[in-house]
This record gives sequence, C-alpha cells and structure tokens, in this order.
Amino acid sequence: MFEQKATNIYWHNGAVTRSDRERLNGHRGFTIWFTGLSASGKSTLAVATERALYERGHHTYILDGDNVRHGLNINLGFSPEDRMENIRRIGEAANLFRDCGIINLTAFISPYRKDRQTARALYKDDSFIEVFVDCPLEVCEQRDPKGVYKKARQGIIKEFTGIDAPYESPENPEIHLHTDKMSVKDCVEVIINYLIGNKHIPA
Amino acid sequence: MFEQKATNIYWHNGAVTRSDRERLNGHRGFTIWFTGLSASGKSTLAVATERALYERGHHTYILDGDNVRHGLNINLGFSPEDRMENIRRIGEAANLFRDCGIINLTAFISPYRKDRQTARALYKDDSFIEVFVDCPLEVCEQRDPKGVYKKARQGIIKEFTGIDAPYESPENPEIHLHTDKMSVKDCVEVIINYLIGNKHIPA
Repeated sequence: MFEQKATNIYWHNGAVTRSDRERLNGHRGFTIWFTGLSASGKSTLAVATERALYERGHHTYILDGDNVRHGLNINLGFSPEDRMENIRRIGEAANLFRDCGIINLTAFISPYRKDRQTARALYKDDSFIEVFVDCPLEVCEQRDPKGVYKKARQGIIKEFTGIDAPYESPENPEIHLHTDKMSVKDCVEVIINYLIGNKHIPA
Repeated sequence: MFEQKATNIYWHNGAVTRSDRERLNGHRGFTIWFTGLSASGKSTLAVATERALYERGHHTYILDGDNVRHGLNINLGFSPEDRMENIRRIGEAANLFRDCGIINLTAFISPYRKDRQTARALYKDDSFIEVFVDCPLEVCEQRDPKGVYKKARQGIIKEFTGIDAPYESPENPEIHLHTDKMSVKDCVEVIINYLIGNKHIPA
C-alpha cells in the first residue's frame, strides 16, 4: 500500500503551501532586514518591532547574533569569506522563515551592499524589506554598550565596521530611519505604517 | 531619546519569547526528525503529516532536500565532512524553527547516529522527535523513484547510503514505522497519536 502512495503525485499536490500558511497566519511571510553600524539600534528596533507585531497577533521571529552566531554559523569567523558566508546563510535562513509564512526580522550589521543584494535576490517579490538603521558613527561610538568601539580604537578588535572596515550604506532601502533623532517608538511606528501601507499586514 | 531606550533593559525584557509564540500558535514548537534510507518514505510521510497537522490548525514547516540543498547548504557536497556539516546546519535550522514555535519536520537520510545525536543535543527537552522510517533495502531499491539505487549499483553514484555507505539505524527512536507494511495513513495516525499522547499538540 505504501508503495502506491509513495509514488502518488497527489500526495505531493497535497503539500501545505506558503499561501496555506499565510492564510492560517492571517498575514504574509516577509523579511525585515535591519542593517547599520554596531550600536545603531538594530536589535533594539527588531525587538520593539517584533513586540508591536506580536501584539497585533502576528507570527514573528528574530534572527540575530545571539541565535545565529552561536548555532548555525558557529563555524564562521570574521575573515572576508566568512563574513560573506555568514550573511549568505542568514539570507537563506530568513528566506525559509518567509516561506514558512513568518514575519522574520534580521538584525546584523551586514555592511556590504553586495551581500545584502545576494540576500534580497532570493526574494522574487516585495517581501524583502531593507531598513537602514542610520546613526552617525560618533553617536554609535559614544553609546558603545558592549565596549567594542573602544577595543577597535585600541586595535584589540581588528577590521571593525566603521573603524577599519567599511560600512556601505543602502542606496535604496525600503525604510530609512535616523536613530539619533527619532525615538524607538517613532521608528516602530514608521515601520508598522510602511507594512500596512504596502499590504504586508492588515490595517 | 533613542539612546536612553537602546540601553534600557526593559526593551529586551519586552522581547517576544518562545512561550509567547507557542501561546499564539496554540501548540508547542518541536521537531519531527524523519530518518531512513532513500525511498523509504521520509518525504511522503513528512508531507502527509504536515497536511494532517495543518488541517488541525497547526503551524508547520518542512525542511527537505528541495529547500535546503539548493539554498542554505548549496555550498556542500557529499564528502564525509560535508555530509556532517549538512546535517549540522539542518539541525541548527530546525532548532530555530522550534524556537519560533513551529512544528518543524525534517526529511533527510541522516544516516549517522552521531550526526542525529548532535542535532538532538541542541534540544534540552522532549521537543526532538526522531522517527525511524524503516523499510528493507530491497523494497527501497525496488521503488527507486529517482533511479538513484540503479545508478549506485552501476557505480555512477558513489558512497550511496545502503549500497556502499552505511545507514546506522536509530537505537531509541521516539517512533518506529515499518513503511513496507503500513499505509501512509496509518503511519500518520501513529505520529499524530504520539504527539497528542505526549502533549505536543492538543487532542
């Protein structure tokens, strides 16, 4: 009996699709890709945006250094190749969550245009939303909650983005936030309004 | 203003947790890890089980060769190291979906006990459910829907599991299914009953 079923195409036609999952969730699956300098506010914004979406009954997940660097990407360092592979895997993982119907938020510096472009290219529609978390280096360095800028200035950390490694600003991000001038609450409001305005989530 | 918020621990306390997501979904997040020979019925069972779970209103996702080998693991071949890394990444990705509150089904041969053990070790509780899709090699070889056994016998494909590479049967799988003797429907019923009996999903 099993043999018949195993080769029966209807079983595969019966597969649960992305549309099915989106219908169940009541919203589309998409990725909000936060990019910006260390201490620009990416994680803070991702957490606050996720909370706002959750309060609206939406299905969300954050990919960040905490759950990716110590797991999926534990075997990657900070060489140029490893940085590229780091962002590549994150892009692929994000795409799986999108396909799962989840609103997926990624919070990584992701300093290179080319790498962000590679992630974006996985999406054949408008479900990749790049958020430029824009904050002047001086302000980030003043915040320095993890003391990483200080170490970079002392040469203890090498090739640190903004100090001795480049950050390539997005040219056409879907959303551009100046976190030195706006409150977290206001930033989240801009994001939510964008999502509603573009029919990613219901009003 | 942003600076105050960014360093305010309450924002992070406000993070959406796995429990929050599970509450929203109405069921726990967990992984059903199908393992077995090629053509034993892993994908068929994963698809049918997902459909049954979806019909019950549950939130699901399948990780299989289609969406993993061509994406996240596109840079891996079939050397012993690459096979190990393949299963390692799948285990980590599955764990992220579990953390997201999703019922995640993986359908890979995953022939080595040690690799499956590594995946299982990421789970600190009972949310890793190993399903041994047990089918005699002769039957798998007879089915051979992709013609891979034939090619392995001809030496066109090297190190093929069951032919010239080992398959290490699970010693203590949570569920053991004999797919040469049971129908897909019956197999799915065994799985669903296990999930209900162990309070992974509501009755």
